[in-house]
Amino acid sequence: MNAWACFLKMDLYIALIHHPVVNKKGDVICSAITNLDLHDIARAARTYGVKGYYVVNPLEDQKILAGQIIKHWTDGSGGTVNPARKEAFGIVRLTDSLEETLEQIRQETSSQVHIVATSARESEKSLSFAEMKEKLPHLDCVLLLFGTAWGLSDEVIDMADYLLEPITGPGEYNHLSVRSAVTVILDRLVTGCRS
Amino acid sequence: MNAWACFLKMDLYIALIHHPVVNKKGDVICSAITNLDLHDIARAARTYGVKGYYVVNPLEDQKILAGQIIKHWTDGSGGTVNPARKEAFGIVRLTDSLEETLEQIRQETSSQVHIVATSARESEKSLSFAEMKEKLPHLDCVLLLFGTAWGLSDEVIDMADYLLEPITGPGEYNHLSVRSAVTVILDRLVTGCRS
Repeated sequence: MNAWACFLKMDLYIALIHHPVVNKKGDVICSAITNLDLHDIARAARTYGVKGYYVVNPLEDQKILAGQIIKHWTDGSGGTVNPARKEAFGIVRLTDSLEETLEQIRQETSSQVHIVATSARESEKSLSFAEMKEKLPHLDCVLLLFGTAWGLSDEVIDMADYLLEPITGPGEYNHLSVRSAVTVILDRLVTGCRS
Repeated sequence: MNAWACFLKMDLYIALIHHPVVNKKGDVICSAITNLDLHDIARAARTYGVKGYYVVNPLEDQKILAGQIIKHWTDGSGGTVNPARKEAFGIVRLTDSLEETLEQIRQETSSQVHIVATSARESEKSLSFAEMKEKLPHLDCVLLLFGTAWGLSDEVIDMADYLLEPITGPGEYNHLSVRSAVTVILDRLVTGCRS
């Protein structure tokens, strides 16, 4: 048994938002779905007991592309060759918006859905990981939001109940890929809690 | 200041091994370098204060390809457009073997280089993260080894001073991408140490 582990009882969902996010200049845009975001984040989500990994993008051609990739790994030959990958892709779901994501989660749970936004930017509103971990045992259902491109738009952050502090190491550099950031945030919140 | 942080004084290096690693059947192979392993792992390494990220592959064509990618982000237009990525790629180094990697590190340090292998497979020899974290303050220089494909060969694991336990979440599923695994292991070892 992993001595590092300390498991939470909550229903945990994550969403990777492609719209509305901001670009380098701060303009609100819709970003493209990437293959590795599907694979790496599905594998991390499955590892940390996430119930559903929502890939949020309103563009029809993007959803068709992502749907084909997901199908290859769930119903297609990919899943036959690699059953572990099939298991990971089994929790991936496509939605048009954060609102549709919340509707789908509410159909699965009678608990209040608490939205936790993440950001690589400092904010006075941010909770530290320690503060967030103190709150988690009291929450039955949590949806963690991750932004692609240059991050979640203010509109999305304003919809959240909580905003989590950026991930930093020993220095000021905080430019992790979203794939790495999702995994570290899940690891910090779901395991590693020795209190 | 991030309340989560607790910084180690050691010189930390990482190596992503493409040979010798094993395939699905357990045969020793040489795997291919992938673009995202360069990007995501360089960004994670830079975030957590790693001094050098070694990409280990003996194949000349693979090293040429990786060298072109690295150059694009250090000396080329990629680095001009994205200075944060330039900074991450500044610590990436190409070597033929673990032996050459050790030689290069020894040219930078007068300390003993302690090799820590990682694996997704359980082993009686594995140290838990808690045990490894107790040792780290006493080590001046550490090289963490990560395997591509189906993991490091026994030959490489036997060369290591320590073997770290696999990353697990609440369940048995432990199929993180190497990109995610590197980031979580760095986060667990470099930060998050509240003892």
